[in-house]
Amino acid sequence: MAKLNGYSLPLSPEGKANLLPAPPWHYSGDMLLVEYRTDPDAVIALLPDELEPADDPGAVSVIFADWQSCTDHGEEWLDPYHSQYKEAMVYVGAKYKGQPICRCVYIWVDKDFAMLRGWVQGFPKKHGDIWMSRPVTVGKAGPRLAPGGKFGATLSVGGRRLIEARVNLTDLSEKGPQVNNPPQFNSRHFPRWDSLEPALYEMVTVKGVDKECSPIWEGHADIKVYDSPFEELRALEPKEIIGGYYHSFGYTMIGGEVVEQHKHLISANKGE
Amino acid sequence: MAKLNGYSLPLSPEGKANLLPAPPWHYSGDMLLVEYRTDPDAVIALLPDELEPADDPGAVSVIFADWQSCTDHGEEWLDPYHSQYKEAMVYVGAKYKGQPICRCVYIWVDKDFAMLRGWVQGFPKKHGDIWMSRPVTVGKAGPRLAPGGKFGATLSVGGRRLIEARVNLTDLSEKGPQVNNPPQFNSRHFPRWDSLEPALYEMVTVKGVDKECSPIWEGHADIKVYDSPFEELRALEPKEIIGGYYHSFGYTMIGGEVVEQHKHLISANKGE
Amino acid sequence: MAKLNGYSLPLSPEGKANLLPAPPWHYSGDMLLVEYRTDPDAVIALLPDELEPADDPGAVSVIFADWQSCTDHGEEWLDPYHSQYKEAMVYVGAKYKGQPICRCVYIWVDKDFAMLRGWVQGFPKKHGDIWMSRPVTVGKAGPRLAPGGKFGATLSVGGRRLIEARVNLTDLSEKGPQVNNPPQFNSRHFPRWDSLEPALYEMVTVKGVDKECSPIWEGHADIKVYDSPFEELRALEPKEIIGGYYHSFGYTMIGGEVVEQHKHLISANKGE
Amino acid sequence: MAKLNGYSLPLSPEGKANLLPAPPWHYSGDMLLVEYRTDPDAVIALLPDELEPADDPGAVSVIFADWQSCTDHGEEWLDPYHSQYKEAMVYVGAKYKGQPICRCVYIWVDKDFAMLRGWVQGFPKKHGDIWMSRPVTVGKAGPRLAPGGKFGATLSVGGRRLIEARVNLTDLSEKGPQVNNPPQFNSRHFPRWDSLEPALYEMVTVKGVDKECSPIWEGHADIKVYDSPFEELRALEPKEIIGGYYHSFGYTMIGGEVVEQHKHLISANKGE
Repeated sequence: MAKLNGYSLPLSPEGKANLLPAPPWHYSGDMLLVEYRTDPDAVIALLPDELEPADDPGAVSVIFADWQSCTDHGEEWLDPYHSQYKEAMVYVGAKYKGQPICRCVYIWVDKDFAMLRGWVQGFPKKHGDIWMSRPVTVGKAGPRLAPGGKFGATLSVGGRRLIEARVNLTDLSEKGPQVNNPPQFNSRHFPRWDSLEPALYEMVTVKGVDKECSPIWEGHADIKVYDSPFEELRALEPKEIIGGYYHSFGYTMIGGEVVEQHKHLISANKGE
Repeated sequence: MAKLNGYSLPLSPEGKANLLPAPPWHYSGDMLLVEYRTDPDAVIALLPDELEPADDPGAVSVIFADWQSCTDHGEEWLDPYHSQYKEAMVYVGAKYKGQPICRCVYIWVDKDFAMLRGWVQGFPKKHGDIWMSRPVTVGKAGPRLAPGGKFGATLSVGGRRLIEARVNLTDLSEKGPQVNNPPQFNSRHFPRWDSLEPALYEMVTVKGVDKECSPIWEGHADIKVYDSPFEELRALEPKEIIGGYYHSFGYTMIGGEVVEQHKHLISANKGE
Repeated sequence: MAKLNGYSLPLSPEGKANLLPAPPWHYSGDMLLVEYRTDPDAVIALLPDELEPADDPGAVSVIFADWQSCTDHGEEWLDPYHSQYKEAMVYVGAKYKGQPICRCVYIWVDKDFAMLRGWVQGFPKKHGDIWMSRPVTVGKAGPRLAPGGKFGATLSVGGRRLIEARVNLTDLSEKGPQVNNPPQFNSRHFPRWDSLEPALYEMVTVKGVDKECSPIWEGHADIKVYDSPFEELRALEPKEIIGGYYHSFGYTMIGGEVVEQHKHLISANKGE
Repeated sequence: MAKLNGYSLPLSPEGKANLLPAPPWHYSGDMLLVEYRTDPDAVIALLPDELEPADDPGAVSVIFADWQSCTDHGEEWLDPYHSQYKEAMVYVGAKYKGQPICRCVYIWVDKDFAMLRGWVQGFPKKHGDIWMSRPVTVGKAGPRLAPGGKFGATLSVGGRRLIEARVNLTDLSEKGPQVNNPPQFNSRHFPRWDSLEPALYEMVTVKGVDKECSPIWEGHADIKVYDSPFEELRALEPKEIIGGYYHSFGYTMIGGEVVEQHKHLISANKGE
């Protein structure tokens, strides 16, 4: 009988039908970031037992990104439905065995392949509608990458506005964003089918190589976080803005490592 | 430190943010089915080693469904973005240890929660755009559930039309559809992060209870299957129509059982 | 040179490319209605000079509808992308020369052909995302058309939730909804290209024939109306609920009549 | 009684609800163009009687564009759902009283405000799903604006792929694209409500000012045009590629002029 092929479901004879082909995955994108401080207890409540609070324990980074991605042959960007996607991410800081790390606690994306690719890397992706201002070089219908350039970004889910962010550029940044700077420690998780304990719950790191970053702009930022019955974003409401940033970023993801299995199994909530 | 809650990612302090809450999951839907025969080798090529060909080895069932789903509290259907979705499924028959089973080999859906819920049950879901005629009881802008009622359904992915199905009702059906009648044996699969072998690859069954089925209509059917660089549907092109059906169906999913771990690990395709 | 054909743009040699084919247009749909009273001045502010306030001058009807539509050949419902659409409408009452009329002051729809078909009839359609509970006859994942059946509907535009409506059915209704009962007097309007005065601004009626209505359910209703920088819905916020309804409706639109040209030209707002 | 305000429907007391605010409209966008020759008779069949064939009568330009647009206050680009849209256009050449002109015969767009703005200017817009490669400056997941950069663009409508275009950049272009270079003569058209003759059918020009164009890249191009029951694109299938281009463009639209009323009224097609 034929061997089935694929990196992900659906497996198929030729391995062309899989939603997610195997790494390496190449990424090129533009990103708008707003860093702010919220109630530190709200951040700490989002950390698994294996992590300790960061030195700046209430710091949060909301990152909007407009990506193209592809595998080695690059054909995806010629049929760009299969390459382009936008996402909105919420990062917090923490420590693992004393070393600073960062962690993506919430993330929304607008394509299926990017959602599964996220789950494989421990990004807890859900679907959302994301919009971001694009810088322009001609005309008056957009911001310039220059002092005074005004950028906006929005996240909505199920027709509810969840996040609105704005950054007014002032200058090139010497330091750049800080919250998402340390190594990422996300958690892969997948439900078991015959019980409420997960089949898979492990903390992982990622290996990004060939990183390229444009000059980073910084500026005055503003951010609003709204509520929904299907989210817990209200807990992370901003108390103090740290700053805003805009830059382009490219890298290649070649896999990662499992740091440790999470010891404490979660208890699934029933019917919530 | 706080305990994180949820049946799926994202885990959160209150367990409200998870994309997929724990079962039971209730479903009510309408479905249009077209059964046909294709080249039996194309069906057999889609079966894992643990399964043998069905007695009618080239039989295929394409099922379009328009669902509402909810958990026990039922609030999802009052905010119907979180309850309604459509999907298109391709089922084939097989045998497991001599007993007839059925298996979903391809499936497309238009909501994120339904996509993850599918992966947890071994449905290889990807995103697609699905449209189905709805029967009407007033006016002229739709088919009646009566002899002569004409129904159509389409699946498109990434702006490419993949399947077009039509059923012209003739009468109530005594036998109903056959291909998807035996117990379902799907395969759960989730990639490992530190190698190309899967972290999870196991054959499972599902436990649906409280099943309710409307009277089943049958009729003349037609189906067209188109090609795409991201699919292997051409292999399943129709050689002979078996029949078409339309009915409503409701049930509750309370979990399932793992039948066995797949012995032969798949080889991930590289950069496809 | 060849004659160009079509009822609307784009005109083409065979007349098949037009976004909107000529009437008659057949409709079959399901609708959820919530009637309430708002500040009468807010309703009166939405009436053109040719209309007088209704006897119940603050009455508003919010109607959610899930439609199929087609032309005489009916092929659209077999390729249902071209037949199905949902819309949310805000109706108010008024009088024309002493006779009660109703008028659609705001309306959102999710398909292009329905948007243009609305403009042609004087419906001021914009794009929106609409979701409505569907009644079920099997299973637990939806309301039954029976006492106790709970229905919900939502409208969002640009990722902002604008309206949330709920109706809990109590019984069949003897009177049915009232606000949208009198003849409709909408206003067609189309901008001039070489000045800010409209090229077209006329009050029209519509001729619906072959009307069929299902039994009408009524029940307890609730409705929330939210704000947006691109809307003026806050002015219509509910002060008192009148009632809620659910029913199916079919009809055929064969054209209409121009009642009169609006005398007072509007002044276009600049850059708003 | 209150005065209603707005440049388009819906009119409202404050004039904020209109789908389309008054000009000036500012645009900044990126565009990919493929010029080719088709059967000249197919182009001529798309010209109204008032126009004569161009000197290169079968030349066609397919233009994909990714826009931001705004009014004078520029707030739309900070809530980018209301600013960003993509479109795919089909231009042909012609002559008016002996002078070369160009004309948009088909166009698809993915936002409602852009659809109405098009109709006001005589662009025969319908809804479509458009995707275009974006040039990158970092990473490997997209083309560079440099020799060898590979760009792709696709148009789909109702889940049917209609156009696929590719351009492989070779060098900066001295001449740039030609087909859409002469003044635009489009036709505004709006149906009457009480007969099948149009209420409005006039040829117009547009006044774009403050034009800014980036350097223009040219390259080898390929284009495929597919069929649909709702289009007449097959008539325009490519016989010979002229060339491909990529550039950015900004301008401000301040209105236009009516050239003449079309003398020959179209005959609406019935139920097509």
